[in-house]
Amino acid sequence: MNTLSSATRPRIVVIGCGFGGLEATRTLEHAAVDITVIEKTNHHLFQPLLYQVATAGLAAPSIAAPVRLLFRHQPNVTTLLGQVTSLLPEEREIELADGTRIGYDHLIVAAGATHSYFGHDEWKPVAPGLKTLADAFDIRRRVLMSFEAAETTTDADHRRRLLTFVVIGAGPTGVEMAGTLAEIARHTLAGEFRRIDPCSAQVLLVEGGPRVLQAMHESLSAKAQVQLERLGVEVRLNAKVTAIDASGLEVDAAVGHYRIDSSCVIWAAGVAASPLGRLLGAATGVECDRAGRVKVEPDLSLAGHPEISVVGDLAAAMSYAPGKLPKPVPCVSPGAKQMGRAAAANVLHRIAGESTVPFRYRDYGNLATIGRNSAVVDLETPLGPLRFSGRLAWLFWLFAHAYFLIGFRNRIVVLMDWASAYWSFQRHARVVADLSSKNEP
Amino acid sequence: MNTLSSATRPRIVVIGCGFGGLEATRTLEHAAVDITVIEKTNHHLFQPLLYQVATAGLAAPSIAAPVRLLFRHQPNVTTLLGQVTSLLPEEREIELADGTRIGYDHLIVAAGATHSYFGHDEWKPVAPGLKTLADAFDIRRRVLMSFEAAETTTDADHRRRLLTFVVIGAGPTGVEMAGTLAEIARHTLAGEFRRIDPCSAQVLLVEGGPRVLQAMHESLSAKAQVQLERLGVEVRLNAKVTAIDASGLEVDAAVGHYRIDSSCVIWAAGVAASPLGRLLGAATGVECDRAGRVKVEPDLSLAGHPEISVVGDLAAAMSYAPGKLPKPVPCVSPGAKQMGRAAAANVLHRIAGESTVPFRYRDYGNLATIGRNSAVVDLETPLGPLRFSGRLAWLFWLFAHAYFLIGFRNRIVVLMDWASAYWSFQRHARVVADLSSKNEP
Repeated sequence: MNTLSSATRPRIVVIGCGFGGLEATRTLEHAAVDITVIEKTNHHLFQPLLYQVATAGLAAPSIAAPVRLLFRHQPNVTTLLGQVTSLLPEEREIELADGTRIGYDHLIVAAGATHSYFGHDEWKPVAPGLKTLADAFDIRRRVLMSFEAAETTTDADHRRRLLTFVVIGAGPTGVEMAGTLAEIARHTLAGEFRRIDPCSAQVLLVEGGPRVLQAMHESLSAKAQVQLERLGVEVRLNAKVTAIDASGLEVDAAVGHYRIDSSCVIWAAGVAASPLGRLLGAATGVECDRAGRVKVEPDLSLAGHPEISVVGDLAAAMSYAPGKLPKPVPCVSPGAKQMGRAAAANVLHRIAGESTVPFRYRDYGNLATIGRNSAVVDLETPLGPLRFSGRLAWLFWLFAHAYFLIGFRNRIVVLMDWASAYWSFQRHARVVADLSSKNEP
Repeated sequence: MNTLSSATRPRIVVIGCGFGGLEATRTLEHAAVDITVIEKTNHHLFQPLLYQVATAGLAAPSIAAPVRLLFRHQPNVTTLLGQVTSLLPEEREIELADGTRIGYDHLIVAAGATHSYFGHDEWKPVAPGLKTLADAFDIRRRVLMSFEAAETTTDADHRRRLLTFVVIGAGPTGVEMAGTLAEIARHTLAGEFRRIDPCSAQVLLVEGGPRVLQAMHESLSAKAQVQLERLGVEVRLNAKVTAIDASGLEVDAAVGHYRIDSSCVIWAAGVAASPLGRLLGAATGVECDRAGRVKVEPDLSLAGHPEISVVGDLAAAMSYAPGKLPKPVPCVSPGAKQMGRAAAANVLHRIAGESTVPFRYRDYGNLATIGRNSAVVDLETPLGPLRFSGRLAWLFWLFAHAYFLIGFRNRIVVLMDWASAYWSFQRHARVVADLSSKNEP
């Protein structure tokens, strides 16, 4: 019951409306507080399916919901579209790019992550990463336009370069991208070209470490690699990228230093925290880790600033399970959601004058899809780990992702798109609205 | 039966894959010819529903089909993505932007139309038109961002300007845009903002002529205007736009010269033929009309160049019905489709050494939607004209458009989106991928 007058209700500001920010705000639904959610895009993005937009399997609106629509029926929320440029913990204010200042009593920072090029920001224009819808459209355009240009060109070397796709980084996104690219070349585009054979396209997955999907059990990494290779992906492990330019990349591997000519390189290797992390660190004196994530207290607040919490990919958080040693929380969406809920609950504890609760991450396991009928699932069950791969894992992945998608319509349309893609090998979103790109060679 | 060897099969080049080019190419499906279709985007666009992408009702892939997918099972077609920059009728060649030259025995030019700003090209960046998917995304962004900025700003004048939407031109596109914008303000966004009331947004439809939908019967124009006003659109007739800038426009009307402050002006007033029309005119000595459309012979070929045909919005064509005076063919999609079929059939007549057939346009009537439950239909039947408006007309419009959409999946998804929009007043594609714009004030 909101019996307090608006003037005396605690003001909560949530920065970012990814999984962490969304869950935090929803947790506060019935609280007598005034929430301001600040998002720099107009939508909440279902990141786990973003690679499907990039690979033309889904339309953008299927995986993105307008932020203010999500909070339409939550009257204690005001949504503002804006970019936070300054954090002023002493004044308990934040500042937006247009100069607007917003005061808070409690701040939840859920600004997420961006790509990291490990100090090689010059690689960004030639090897785009996948974090936003704009990134997905950029990758979709590059992939489809490579096949188009290959059909037009008469230069054999250029054609070979255009038909070589390289994905850097064999985490879940890199594996999904590479598997889907191989499917597009082998199945989706088959029969549509008259001068080239799309099946002759090469898809390379370049990974610096010794196996794919390193967050998973070794047995699943091996299975994933077999499934990738069956789809036509060439996996290169222990291969460190040393240079990328508009026409290819250079790699250091056991066999020596070599070059791969490619017009389409996709970056799935590094993730760094949003720049807001370092800003927050500087403003509060709290330490950040190497990836720029802010080190938080057990209850997800900042040392010396209990009124500020950090959640999701921006937080270097630990999980505190009774009787166990603290463990780092992985950068995955269930982690962000759980942190969002926990931070919001702790804000309510503070408002009520109660003590806060240390965060405990519940790990239900990991899953990754590789392509048609191929996925690996690594579940944590009370009876021990449950691991499986292949078609069953793929169905499990499919329904799990459809289930967690926001919105009834989206779920139906996504399942329809998947069903039609499965039976026809087609991908209905093969549409490029804008062919131009500033970054093109 | 394709008994001729490839070397001796007539080479047909089709420029453009809108309604005209698509129909022409499909008509040649079983002919022993080699067709090259050249399109400057990678998709065929179902233009009649483009305003729904602009107003966030549909996702782009629902109304766009990859050109090469459409011709996948037509082996006599090679699709090339490219922009035609030169026409060389003497050499019987065309040249693409990258310098590639393509020879032909028969050329069908179906390059369509673009916006015309009546000599005021400086209006383009401040008053975007709606012809391509990129245009639609630009308009979607402007409309949604205007509401977002209005929620953030503290300047009352700025807010009023942000909440004033002006559509210039009351043809079918202008009427559809204005009606849908009013619906968005009154219904879709209702309840989502905390500082502004989206219902307070003003939607103005500014038309230089004396009535809306001038291609239709006067009684329907009157009905359309009533329906527009019921939806909340302010219709200003006989109002000539004299200036447009980033913060508004100036208008000459019976009441005198006045200014309308608006941050979001949409251009639906003028259409001009593709610049290829004038290029073709200059290369062949054939005359173009004021809108840049190429004057064609009764069989849609060019005087002195029977091997070149022009169809669709690029052609200034006449319809030849037996016993009637020739009548100009209107710039509508059925006209383009019929011309495409006729031109292709005439190409086959020429190849067979037969005489060609004059083009006859069959006018089945006109229809335009205005908004929820509102449309006007003006059918030509063998028993005379059949005119109706309101909910029945809207249902008729809805099923007619769904029927003509390409692809089974698209039809189902579009009908689902419409059904969900109808019951929930929601528009699921309210997603802006890229907030930046070079043209922004």
